[in-house]
Amino acid sequence: MNKPIEFYFDFSSPYGYLASTQIDALANRFDRTVIWRPFLVGASFKLTGRKPLLEVPLVRDYMAHDVERFARFLEIPFSLPEKFPIAAIAASRGFYWLAEQDPDLAISFAKRVYHAYFAKHQDITSSEALADLASSLQIDRDQWIVAVKSQAIKDRFREENDRALERGVFGSPFFIIGDEAFWGADRLPQVEQWLSRDGW
Amino acid sequence: MNKPIEFYFDFSSPYGYLASTQIDALANRFDRTVIWRPFLVGASFKLTGRKPLLEVPLVRDYMAHDVERFARFLEIPFSLPEKFPIAAIAASRGFYWLAEQDPDLAISFAKRVYHAYFAKHQDITSSEALADLASSLQIDRDQWIVAVKSQAIKDRFREENDRALERGVFGSPFFIIGDEAFWGADRLPQVEQWLSRDGW
Repeated sequence: MNKPIEFYFDFSSPYGYLASTQIDALANRFDRTVIWRPFLVGASFKLTGRKPLLEVPLVRDYMAHDVERFARFLEIPFSLPEKFPIAAIAASRGFYWLAEQDPDLAISFAKRVYHAYFAKHQDITSSEALADLASSLQIDRDQWIVAVKSQAIKDRFREENDRALERGVFGSPFFIIGDEAFWGADRLPQVEQWLSRDGW
Repeated sequence: MNKPIEFYFDFSSPYGYLASTQIDALANRFDRTVIWRPFLVGASFKLTGRKPLLEVPLVRDYMAHDVERFARFLEIPFSLPEKFPIAAIAASRGFYWLAEQDPDLAISFAKRVYHAYFAKHQDITSSEALADLASSLQIDRDQWIVAVKSQAIKDRFREENDRALERGVFGSPFFIIGDEAFWGADRLPQVEQWLSRDGW
């Protein structure tokens, strides 16, 4: 049985977005499933004392250029939104609510959220904007709005974040295959080699 | 005239070492020269407020594993020295002294320093240890010891560090091709594509 690729990402992470456009095709080439796991990378910053790279002098200018160049390299639409970063709590909760019913639908939703934010600069934080995105996938709008605010899904998302920290996930994107962890969209070539050779 | 690759690295940087084993072959494939520029990445930490990644909780454990895995991927000898990180001031000064006379000899010296530290866990901070490495390249031991302590070479190295900061170099390795900057050993595949396509 091939181990799945666990794909941790923050909806506010540009490099997470880049990886989200690549991970399914990569997994398919090696007959792997991908378990998508949105989380809030900010929670790890308390433990690590780090800041978002796009708030760090010198690094900020480089990163803004690097991520746009990386997107052009992958030939995907991207530019850094004016309103950045954002807290993607509601989108993440909605994702887990969907995933409990239909994991593939949840992944389609995640892709629409990322595309809306990084390709079209749409809001992905308000309940209304997210309900619109959900509706476009034939998800019931009223059910959605109730579900995302439920205590059950808030608890579920908190557990996911706690579990991510316990597992040492401190950046987005972050990939775990069995016991092997890879951090960063730039590690995708090594993830591919890892699957191809079954490690090295 | 093909633009050279300016290769910034800190002798104490494991990812700089990884890149140092790859950059010449890569440049040769595209008929480029490489200008090796040792610097002290620590100077940028004052500006950025960052810490060496191997001192950051959570990140530290990941990085120690990542860099060893990356070295195995490249099939080069590497393990993290017990005495790490170190201040590679004398080695860097010696490099620039050699480079003024014979750039190729300076590069050979840099490769020996990196190999001594990351493949063999030898000291690369003391004058004696560095003089031994220099001697192995038929560099006059007494001249070397005098030169590395001279005010002229101290000034030269300070200028190199100031210039690196002015150019926004904040990590090791760091590559500059014309106006284009790439940070990290993991950007080498993009550096290669950049040279192959003349940008994108």
